[in-house]
Amino acid sequence: MPFATSLKDAIRTIPDYPKPGIMFRDITTLLGDARAFRRTVDELVQPYAGTKIDKIAGIEARGFILGGAVAHQLSAGFVPIRKKGKLPHTVVSVAYSLEYGLDEMEMHEDAVAPGERVILVDDLIATGGTATAAVELLRRIGAEVAACVFVIDLPDLGGADRLRALDVPVRTLISFEGH
Amino acid sequence: MPFATSLKDAIRTIPDYPKPGIMFRDITTLLGDARAFRRTVDELVQPYAGTKIDKIAGIEARGFILGGAVAHQLSAGFVPIRKKGKLPHTVVSVAYSLEYGLDEMEMHEDAVAPGERVILVDDLIATGGTATAAVELLRRIGAEVAACVFVIDLPDLGGADRLRALDVPVRTLISFEGH
Repeated sequence: MPFATSLKDAIRTIPDYPKPGIMFRDITTLLGDARAFRRTVDELVQPYAGTKIDKIAGIEARGFILGGAVAHQLSAGFVPIRKKGKLPHTVVSVAYSLEYGLDEMEMHEDAVAPGERVILVDDLIATGGTATAAVELLRRIGAEVAACVFVIDLPDLGGADRLRALDVPVRTLISFEGH
Repeated sequence: MPFATSLKDAIRTIPDYPKPGIMFRDITTLLGDARAFRRTVDELVQPYAGTKIDKIAGIEARGFILGGAVAHQLSAGFVPIRKKGKLPHTVVSVAYSLEYGLDEMEMHEDAVAPGERVILVDDLIATGGTATAAVELLRRIGAEVAACVFVIDLPDLGGADRLRALDVPVRTLISFEGH
């Protein structure tokens, strides 16, 4: 598949970042390549074009870049899911696990109307900790999570399977074995 | 102008946030309104459609949402300008003033090729501290800053004038007097 190969080739791998043993997948080279960026957005939402999608939810910060573009592509609204303390109005919040300890993410409680269909967007899915927390937030305010889409999947870490176990369709474009 | 009025009406004002006396302009209600979001993106870049724009640079974090959509609209690449320590490859960095003290923003040094035409995108311009620092970063790596575009201008704080004094065209869609 020359198409998929070229998208994968647009990602820069940085060994031993942010610490020894980690192969960091740097998506900025893909974002900066106009053709690769457009193809990525088109491919991410291709199954949902022409269906009813009300909002795109993006996870801070890299999910904002892709989410903004996906919202534009589908003519949907955009909903930011942010780190604790960044949103100015009444929020719903959820704790999620990081490698060490817990963190919290938040969404405006009026960001999605009950029954609206939402696609969650982020750049990468690893263990799925942030994505499953985001799905919980969206469902708590009444959203129907139509899909979660990610450019990169690290399948050995099981995040996509964790989301599917919550009855959420998952779409990813590129896989890297290992982590 | 009913069009401009409706965009302005899509912004939620939160009094006394983040501290007493500040009228916070909350753009999330505009982003979440599919028609207002699309109109905003279309209006922001309308003068540049059909011209040569290679990259869109967005300032973390709200500038990522609009910047991603603008890059998609113009079929350009996207370049993130991030807070210190967030980018994985070799960066250029610049200090800028906050209300109390200094902070730093960074960009990958290979994010823009010399001579490429770039539009800088953020949600709001106030004093222009972050935007002028971002223009400095872009010029240091050889970019031609074709324009800076913002949804909201707070003209009493003088940021747009500061950018124009650097020979940068500035486009804003909505003004709020005061700050």
